[in-house]
Amino acid sequence: MDRDGAQSPTRPGSTSSPDDQSLRARAARVVPGGMWGHQRAASLPDGYPQFFREADGCRIVDADGRAYVDLMCSWGPIVLGHRHPAVEAAADAQRRLGDCMNGPGEAMVLLAERLVETIPSADWAMFQKNGGDATTACVMIARAATGRRKVLVARGSYHGVAPWCTPSVAGVTAEDRAHVLHFDYNDQDSLAAAVREAGADLAAILVTAFRHDLGRDQQMPTVPFARAARELSARAGAALVLDDVRAGFRLDLRGSWEPLGIRPDLSAWSKAIANGHALAAVTGADWLREAATKVFVTGSFWTASASMAAALATLEELHRIDAPAVMARSGLRLREGIDAQARAQGVRLRQSGPPQMPLVLFDDDPGQKLGEVFCREALAHGAYLHPRHNMFLSTAHDDAAIDAVLAATDAGMRAVKRARTG
Amino acid sequence: MDRDGAQSPTRPGSTSSPDDQSLRARAARVVPGGMWGHQRAASLPDGYPQFFREADGCRIVDADGRAYVDLMCSWGPIVLGHRHPAVEAAADAQRRLGDCMNGPGEAMVLLAERLVETIPSADWAMFQKNGGDATTACVMIARAATGRRKVLVARGSYHGVAPWCTPSVAGVTAEDRAHVLHFDYNDQDSLAAAVREAGADLAAILVTAFRHDLGRDQQMPTVPFARAARELSARAGAALVLDDVRAGFRLDLRGSWEPLGIRPDLSAWSKAIANGHALAAVTGADWLREAATKVFVTGSFWTASASMAAALATLEELHRIDAPAVMARSGLRLREGIDAQARAQGVRLRQSGPPQMPLVLFDDDPGQKLGEVFCREALAHGAYLHPRHNMFLSTAHDDAAIDAVLAATDAGMRAVKRARTG
Repeated sequence: MDRDGAQSPTRPGSTSSPDDQSLRARAARVVPGGMWGHQRAASLPDGYPQFFREADGCRIVDADGRAYVDLMCSWGPIVLGHRHPAVEAAADAQRRLGDCMNGPGEAMVLLAERLVETIPSADWAMFQKNGGDATTACVMIARAATGRRKVLVARGSYHGVAPWCTPSVAGVTAEDRAHVLHFDYNDQDSLAAAVREAGADLAAILVTAFRHDLGRDQQMPTVPFARAARELSARAGAALVLDDVRAGFRLDLRGSWEPLGIRPDLSAWSKAIANGHALAAVTGADWLREAATKVFVTGSFWTASASMAAALATLEELHRIDAPAVMARSGLRLREGIDAQARAQGVRLRQSGPPQMPLVLFDDDPGQKLGEVFCREALAHGAYLHPRHNMFLSTAHDDAAIDAVLAATDAGMRAVKRARTG
Repeated sequence: MDRDGAQSPTRPGSTSSPDDQSLRARAARVVPGGMWGHQRAASLPDGYPQFFREADGCRIVDADGRAYVDLMCSWGPIVLGHRHPAVEAAADAQRRLGDCMNGPGEAMVLLAERLVETIPSADWAMFQKNGGDATTACVMIARAATGRRKVLVARGSYHGVAPWCTPSVAGVTAEDRAHVLHFDYNDQDSLAAAVREAGADLAAILVTAFRHDLGRDQQMPTVPFARAARELSARAGAALVLDDVRAGFRLDLRGSWEPLGIRPDLSAWSKAIANGHALAAVTGADWLREAATKVFVTGSFWTASASMAAALATLEELHRIDAPAVMARSGLRLREGIDAQARAQGVRLRQSGPPQMPLVLFDDDPGQKLGEVFCREALAHGAYLHPRHNMFLSTAHDDAAIDAVLAATDAGMRAVKRARTG
């Protein structure tokens, strides 16, 4: 029961499975910290669940049986809604034949063909499991192709958890990052300075699709910045690597920089590519094909066919319904609704980034404390939001779902107003 | 049709799917080198298929519809046979609820509890997707715990494809391996020398369960070597890391060094843990729990519940039937049969390693050319073997399957004899 007296969004259902609290207590004994990484509920406001029981479409049910409209979409992978029938049917059909076999199946060829056909910058594709497998492979391919070492990365950008890029320094040595130089996203002067610093040793410039750093206003890439990234890397004979792991297949099915008219040499993909099935991909230009053949990157499950069948069905559906437009429309409905609520309550906030991947940050809110009030209240009213990480829409978020979120954020906005004035 | 005039092991079935040759031609256009990594058929003798259509139990069917008894088990993951009913049912049931959700489900807790209960060296567990995620996390946890940098690795041991360990140097910088020192497996003097070289900067000693390097006779760890690894790391306050990715759940369900009485501080697991579903795990001792909490290792699909449900069902079945003993028995039947065939043909060969993970190398066979003759002929007679990488049995390899393999290896042995005398 929250302090407005609103009903918890409980739902009738099985009571046999253990609740969140008991699962946390058990996990605390057998999992370090009770949970690792970005899914550790301790990084979210009080009241957020750690454990989930089920999911369907745009809704998710926690271990206590409370249902929410899911604005995180599993932190990105779910782009067509949880348990999308066509995707699951494709994966099931493949699994009935075989999944992890001694080598790839036809699905790998079909998927590589589909990506090459769809993505103008792609002449070839390779597959992995994690987004970080793909970003690391891009770096290795760029280094193998150029015989150089320096990789330029935007300060604060997230590219995965390999020692060269994980945001924590625990367990990392200085040498792991010896050849990583930094620039500021959307700042072509700082990029040019980093290029000069790398000199003749520049292997790659690595950029995320847009600036989506934790707890900061999102920024779409400016055309001058994107052009500078393209021209500086081309002039140096280095690879421009687009990390499209987080944004890929939500903004533009041809690649997130295609609307800018800028084509990367290498792209890293994962998250939404198979609607929740574990898969990642690197796509690249012909000049990097030989280098991609030389690097030894492989994995026990990288040719498993079921996730590729799922990806084929996902891409098919994304194209069929023009998914980026569907999500943009819902995202705008959400954004406009939240803006109206903020105006009505006299609350100042910023919504940034593409509408498919919303972020709401409040003015004068160090540590995102107001964001936490907002999210906690919205959660109590049945919407699962995040106070500082970008959120994700899926095509399963229809008008009714967005309106349900808006009913929850209205309560959240009132709570923010109370917190500011109280 | 092979030169003995034996029938190709063709099987009636769908002819609608493309054949191996046409898939290879298509793949050559859209995948660098047509295929990457260890599953590239070009590293196998002529006649080996690149693409697979289906799999069931211990049998696998290539894109041309030829069926084989599968002695690679997808290079390890398949430990109960392809498409094991109980494993698939558990994964399906979980998927009908939800797989990749905003956080873990009960399955993660159950699986961590199960591993901690089963593995005497494990006080906690964390999960990933690739074996290499697990080995790299072990290295990072050891470094975070000790505040030191040096990691000792056996020359020629395979620990994955991260820049610090991938067997190719393409795309790798010297700094990626700046803190990796080497010793020789089963040579405690060389290990002691490497420990001295690392000095006060020793973070971890990393060992595979046994020596299973490509193209070399396998070696079980000697007790003096295992003891030295344990004592040297303990004395230095460093972590002993057991890379059980390849051997785990085939030799001993408690961990592959448990029969030696040696318990590692950290273990890396993957491959067989979920019978082909993508999953990896790190287990560790209490003194490393805090460090495991500090390192930031995470992934979009690392808490997905279906692969964990599959792992729970896999472990259940492995215990129920005492799977290591089942595989050891089949492996010995295979080994004795091959030895008898070699004697009958006057061919000299070595079979090495644990019976669950066979390797056959021929005497006086530089480049494993005789091994290729052997495997090519066995392939033509319906057995999928490998001429230089260790093979894998599963519990689905019953006496009839082993006898079918032996019929194929008999043809292979005769071909070797002809090649030596011809």
